[in-house]
Amino acid sequence: MHLVLTSRILGILLMIFSLAMLPPVVISLIYQDGGTEAFGIAFAINVIAGFILWYPARRYRKELSVRDGFFVTLMFWLVLGLFGAFPLMLSDHPGLSFTDAFFESLSGLTTTGATVITGLDDLPHSILFYRQQLQWLGGMGIIVLAVAILPMLGIGGMQLYRAETPGPMKDSKLTPRITETAKALWYIYLSLTVACAVGYWIAGMNVFDAICHSFATVAIGGFSTHDASMGYFNSAAIELICVFFMIISAFNFSLHFLSWRRGSFIYYWKDPETRFFLGILALAVIITGLTLATTQAYSETDSWRHALFGVVSVATTTGFGIGDFSSWPSYLPFLVFSLAFIGGCAGSTGGGMKVIRTLLVYKQGLREIRRLLHPNAVIPIKVGRKPVPDRVIEAVWGFFSVYIITFIGLQIGLLMSGLDMVTAWSAVGACINNLGPGLGEVAANYGEINDPAKWILSAAMLLGRLEIFTVLVLFIPDFWER
Amino acid sequence: MHLVLTSRILGILLMIFSLAMLPPVVISLIYQDGGTEAFGIAFAINVIAGFILWYPARRYRKELSVRDGFFVTLMFWLVLGLFGAFPLMLSDHPGLSFTDAFFESLSGLTTTGATVITGLDDLPHSILFYRQQLQWLGGMGIIVLAVAILPMLGIGGMQLYRAETPGPMKDSKLTPRITETAKALWYIYLSLTVACAVGYWIAGMNVFDAICHSFATVAIGGFSTHDASMGYFNSAAIELICVFFMIISAFNFSLHFLSWRRGSFIYYWKDPETRFFLGILALAVIITGLTLATTQAYSETDSWRHALFGVVSVATTTGFGIGDFSSWPSYLPFLVFSLAFIGGCAGSTGGGMKVIRTLLVYKQGLREIRRLLHPNAVIPIKVGRKPVPDRVIEAVWGFFSVYIITFIGLQIGLLMSGLDMVTAWSAVGACINNLGPGLGEVAANYGEINDPAKWILSAAMLLGRLEIFTVLVLFIPDFWER
Ligand SMILES: [K+]
Ligand SMILES: [K+]
Repeated sequence: MHLVLTSRILGILLMIFSLAMLPPVVISLIYQDGGTEAFGIAFAINVIAGFILWYPARRYRKELSVRDGFFVTLMFWLVLGLFGAFPLMLSDHPGLSFTDAFFESLSGLTTTGATVITGLDDLPHSILFYRQQLQWLGGMGIIVLAVAILPMLGIGGMQLYRAETPGPMKDSKLTPRITETAKALWYIYLSLTVACAVGYWIAGMNVFDAICHSFATVAIGGFSTHDASMGYFNSAAIELICVFFMIISAFNFSLHFLSWRRGSFIYYWKDPETRFFLGILALAVIITGLTLATTQAYSETDSWRHALFGVVSVATTTGFGIGDFSSWPSYLPFLVFSLAFIGGCAGSTGGGMKVIRTLLVYKQGLREIRRLLHPNAVIPIKVGRKPVPDRVIEAVWGFFSVYIITFIGLQIGLLMSGLDMVTAWSAVGACINNLGPGLGEVAANYGEINDPAKWILSAAMLLGRLEIFTVLVLFIPDFWER
Repeated sequence: MHLVLTSRILGILLMIFSLAMLPPVVISLIYQDGGTEAFGIAFAINVIAGFILWYPARRYRKELSVRDGFFVTLMFWLVLGLFGAFPLMLSDHPGLSFTDAFFESLSGLTTTGATVITGLDDLPHSILFYRQQLQWLGGMGIIVLAVAILPMLGIGGMQLYRAETPGPMKDSKLTPRITETAKALWYIYLSLTVACAVGYWIAGMNVFDAICHSFATVAIGGFSTHDASMGYFNSAAIELICVFFMIISAFNFSLHFLSWRRGSFIYYWKDPETRFFLGILALAVIITGLTLATTQAYSETDSWRHALFGVVSVATTTGFGIGDFSSWPSYLPFLVFSLAFIGGCAGSTGGGMKVIRTLLVYKQGLREIRRLLHPNAVIPIKVGRKPVPDRVIEAVWGFFSVYIITFIGLQIGLLMSGLDMVTAWSAVGACINNLGPGLGEVAANYGEINDPAKWILSAAMLLGRLEIFTVLVLFIPDFWER
């Protein structure tokens, strides 16, 4: 561990992050919403804190080790979550407590989209823009993390994607590869955002809402500038655009990179994870639509509209709403919510356990049943036509095991804080899968639950976003040994 | 598949099973409780049905193949569950419907212990005895299944125990090994039952209750002759005896065999699964006792008494009660109920996923975290001092995967039938883990839930008892090919 190096990096990071306070300043000046001061102070705090971290360590230059990588990754979200909370505390509206502000800030940066705020429609434009921007920046971070860092660290089977990572791969050191890859990915990310915003604007949103919602869409974040979320616009065109970009953003960004560089869409279709993902979505939409129509929860047209939007929003772990899926009849809330555990594809801004891991887990189950009949046959697990190395499957299972143990621990914590069973289970699920809305008391909003529960759920968001291992590895004694 | 052979075996089985109707006949004559006729008719039905299955196939002799093994194992429980239901339908008290009678009968035979009957204290003695006897017979079947059959079929990693199975092992054919092993195991099982019954009797139960409860204890069944279950006796001595025999019955019966043959108790302590199991129990009792005492749910002494009995009863998947753990404060119902997912040791009458599988899953999780820091190190997973073959770990994970998929499918079924989330989740958990009592609407009794739900839960009991694979393997097309 190079703590001095870490300090230098975090200092630089904070100083760069302080720039994120400036667009809201501009917006507060345009709309005269009174937010200028809060963002000004927050800017100063970030710059000063960044400088204090950076200055003593400024001449310290070393390559990042893998251990440093884990630590910096965790600190990236933790420190930004903390300093990102300032405007939400300093502004009179919403004027959140420290707990609430940290929860909201981390929920933004981890692209979870769980909110403690009600009355969004009445908030200053600068605050609204800032929340959306937090998600967008968080999404950027995740793309780099998921495409460039996790495969290299080999977390939970993600070494599977090592060879496919764009950018120079032969180099064994972290820094140059990340910089190179990051540029290409951010370019794609930015293009998607612009396309999405233009789409929303053409479909009828005003410029402010179009930009704000495009941020939350490509980041698979789910924050909105309205309490009614996407339902506010009541527009089938907007919903379709949203569905399209939610799905696109839940694809592996390596595929976007590949398709863009080689000018062909065939790579999406050739990818087994993407196909499996689309298959699950299609199946879930059909089941949900049929059930909604037959139970007459909505009119027939509306049933399909709600089914499509609701399923895609939850399955991609975006969490936008045009209605409240948690009040759908019978088994639908459970079924739809369960899709968030599968989540988006690896290397996307989506949360959950990732489609590829689910696919491997499913194939392993099938293989074991076959093996009972053919005990001596060698049955490789294949994704596409390539056999998956045992090492990867072991890692996926290790991930799964730790995921479940962590989940149960967090759920017990919430139950101790006083939440009921359904709320506790779904709140952990909604946060660890970076989905946002849950069931029961947290179907719409996290404002009413107790403070200890909010801290536990903050931990859940962070654990989920960093694929759990990145956090847990810091707790084993080996990590801190020389 | 040799259907004729299967028919012969099931015919013989049914004719033997018909003998199970005779002790209740004797008891109904002693107590003059009016059950004689019902059991007489049931006896006749069993004998006749058995004869019809056996007679045409009586000259057909072939060795059982592995496929036949799967089929016969499933049919064993299914056919006995069906024919075992007759007395419960035919008797005026309780005079159950077909659905209820099948549920109750299968719940007995699978040692689940979920009951649809209330007013146990007023039922005829013959019926009460019969229910307990179903559990005892089911427990016998499981011991043979778990110690002799599953390791050979290699279900869910149970090949780990192949070398340790008592009896002649070199032989590759099913029949002689099973017969040999079965005799030794039943001897142990019978001895434990007698010891337990004598213990209960000395501690103050009458002879009838002592025998009945000893059946349900060593079978880890949990049926009782009283609505208040073990709470009826309100005796610390009886509870301690019960705790002791629940734990003993949740140990691997191979260890009992080994200890008995070699005259030493060291084998229990040397077994890593047993140690892990006792460790979990101790930890859970301490946490539960402390929480009950601090929340003042009971007096201090009663807190520890309830913690010890409740934790052991649920963790071993017995399901006896001296109080209602589902109404314990805060996180306790969830925590205690979760222990049933771990369940008893492999090769015991206990349900759940089995301690050894949990241990391996946990070790795999730890290994993956270590591997992040030492990516090139070879880190074997060891149980005791022996490294576990990769093949076994893969099989355990396959089991886990199929278990979860099955669980979610069953839960969706229950939600469709109209149950609420907590009831649906805990009912599946209570039945697939062969525990018995759940949470919510099924905390004490399954009588009030709808009929489709009862059929789904019957499937859950059967799937759980047969380690899921034994059932699912019949649904893959390969199975039925020549
Ligand atoms: K989200
Ligand atoms: K039981």
